Amino acid sequence: MAIILDGKKTAARIEEKLTEKVELLAEEKGIRPGLAVVLVGENPASTTYVRMKNKRSTKIGLHFDLRKFPPTVTKDELHETIDELNRSDKVHGILVQLPLPDHLDPHEAIDWIVPEKDADGLGTLNQGLLYRGKPCLMPCTPKGMIRLLEEYGIGTEGKNVVVVGRSELVGRPLAVMLSSRKRNATVTVAHTRTRDLCHITKQAEIVAVAAGRAQMLDADCFSEGVVVLDAGINAIPSSESKTGRRLVGDIDFESVSKIASYITPVPGGVGPMTVCMLLENTVEAARRICGL
Amino acid sequence: MAIILDGKKTAARIEEKLTEKVELLAEEKGIRPGLAVVLVGENPASTTYVRMKNKRSTKIGLHFDLRKFPPTVTKDELHETIDELNRSDKVHGILVQLPLPDHLDPHEAIDWIVPEKDADGLGTLNQGLLYRGKPCLMPCTPKGMIRLLEEYGIGTEGKNVVVVGRSELVGRPLAVMLSSRKRNATVTVAHTRTRDLCHITKQAEIVAVAAGRAQMLDADCFSEGVVVLDAGINAIPSSESKTGRRLVGDIDFESVSKIASYITPVPGGVGPMTVCMLLENTVEAARRICGL
Repeated sequence: MAIILDGKKTAARIEEKLTEKVELLAEEKGIRPGLAVVLVGENPASTTYVRMKNKRSTKIGLHFDLRKFPPTVTKDELHETIDELNRSDKVHGILVQLPLPDHLDPHEAIDWIVPEKDADGLGTLNQGLLYRGKPCLMPCTPKGMIRLLEEYGIGTEGKNVVVVGRSELVGRPLAVMLSSRKRNATVTVAHTRTRDLCHITKQAEIVAVAAGRAQMLDADCFSEGVVVLDAGINAIPSSESKTGRRLVGDIDFESVSKIASYITPVPGGVGPMTVCMLLENTVEAARRICGL
Repeated sequence: MAIILDGKKTAARIEEKLTEKVELLAEEKGIRPGLAVVLVGENPASTTYVRMKNKRSTKIGLHFDLRKFPPTVTKDELHETIDELNRSDKVHGILVQLPLPDHLDPHEAIDWIVPEKDADGLGTLNQGLLYRGKPCLMPCTPKGMIRLLEEYGIGTEGKNVVVVGRSELVGRPLAVMLSSRKRNATVTVAHTRTRDLCHITKQAEIVAVAAGRAQMLDADCFSEGVVVLDAGINAIPSSESKTGRRLVGDIDFESVSKIASYITPVPGGVGPMTVCMLLENTVEAARRICGL
C-alpha cells in the first residue's frame, strides 16, 4: 500500500509557520499582509473556494478583502476595483476568482493586476519569468504539488516524470518547474491528443495528473513504486453519500494506491496545498513590496 | 537515405515572398519595415551573424539600422539607444545581439525593448504570451524549426517528440510550441541531467536537438524513419578543411542520415531558417505597429 501524501496535514504545518511569520511582520515591521479576492457572480464552487480562502487567510492573520460583483459587472467596473486594490497599501496579493462570465476575458482581468501583487502567479509577466527560471510569484497548484514532494523527501533529479494535462494553471507551469535546472527531471507533457497514454505513464517514476477527467487512469497505467500526484477534483454519483455524489480525482485511487509508493488522496491531497501556496505567495509578495 | 530538410532553399523561398510583401507595404501604405541591431564588442561570431542579418534584411527591402558599441559601454548608454529605437518610427524590430559582456545583464537589455518591437521574441512578456498560447513575436530558432517541418508537410499531431536541450532560446519555447493545441505533439524535454538519453530519443518519431555539444548523438540513439532537426552549430578540427576546422551539428549526420526519414544538415538547415524568421517577425511587427 502506498504512503499517503497528506496535503491537509502538510498545509496545516506550513500554515502554522506562516502564522508566526505574519505575526513577526506585524509586530516588528508594522506590516499586515493582505489578500484581496475579486469574485464575480454566484458560481457555487467559486463561492466555496472563496469562503475557504477567506477562512484560512484570516486564520494565519492576513487581512482579507472580498470584492463581490453581480455577473453583469462591466470590464471597466472590474478594472476600476483592481486599480484601487493595486494602489492600496493594505493589499499585497490580489486574485480574480475564475471562471468569469463569458463577456469578461480572464487574461485581461488578471493582467490588470500589477505583477508584484499577482498572488495566483497567472499574469503574463509572472508566467514569462517562471518560464525563464527567474524569481516570480508561482502558480499555486503546481507550486503546491512540488512542495508536497519536497516535504516527503521525494527527489526529482534525473527522474522520468509524466505530466498529464497542459493547462495554463497546472500542467504547463508544473512541467517547466520540474524540468528547471533546480529540479532536473526529464518531463513529458501528455494530453488529450496523446496516443497510447497508458504506455507513456507506465514508464514514469513520477506521474502528475491534471486533466479534469474522473478516474481516467487506473493501476494498469502505472508501474510498481510510482509516485502519483492527482490534481483532479471531479464530482461523481454515489449511492453511499448523503448528497448523492462524492469527489474523486483523475486517477482511480483504489487500484493505483495498491501499486504506488506515494499517492495523493482526493480530497485532502493537492487541494489544500493550493490554498496554502496562495497564502505563502501573499506573504512573499508583502515582504517584497515592503522591500524585505 | 534521409530526405534533406533544406533550410537554405526553404528560407530563400520564404524570403522571396517576404520581398513582395515588403514592396507592397512600401508602395501601398508607405511603410518600410525596419530592423535595428544592437551589437556590443567584437565577438567574431556575433559580427558574422550581424553581417548576415544586415545583408538579408537589405535584400528583402528592410531598412537596417546597426548600433555598434565598444565592450565597455554602460547599461545606461545601452538603454538610451534602445529608448531611441523604441520611439523611432523607422524601426519596427529591435534585437540585442548576444552574448553581451559580463557586466551587462542580457535579460535586462532585452526587456528594455518594447514588446511590440521584440523581434527575437525573447522578452519576458513575449515569452509569457507564447507560454499561454497567445499571439506574440516568437523566438526565431524554434519558429524556424517548426516552419521547416510544415514546409515539408511533416505533421506533429499526436506524435512523440523529444526535445534535447532546455535553453530559453530554443528547447523550452520549442517544447511549448509543439505541445500547444495547434500542434498536439506529446513532448519530452531531455537535457544534460537526463538518464539514458539514447533510450529516450530512440522512442521518438521526431527529435529536435539544441544541446550545443558536437555530434553527441549517433545512429544508435534513433529509430528507423525518425525525423531529426539539429539546431547545433559546433566548430571541430578538420584536416580536410583549409581553415583547419569545420562546422557540425549536435548529431552525427553521417550515421543518422542513413536511418532517418528527414534530417536537417549543418550548416544549411536550421540556421538559415532562424534569420528568415527574424525577417518575418520584423515584417509582422511593422504590420501590427501600423495597425494592419
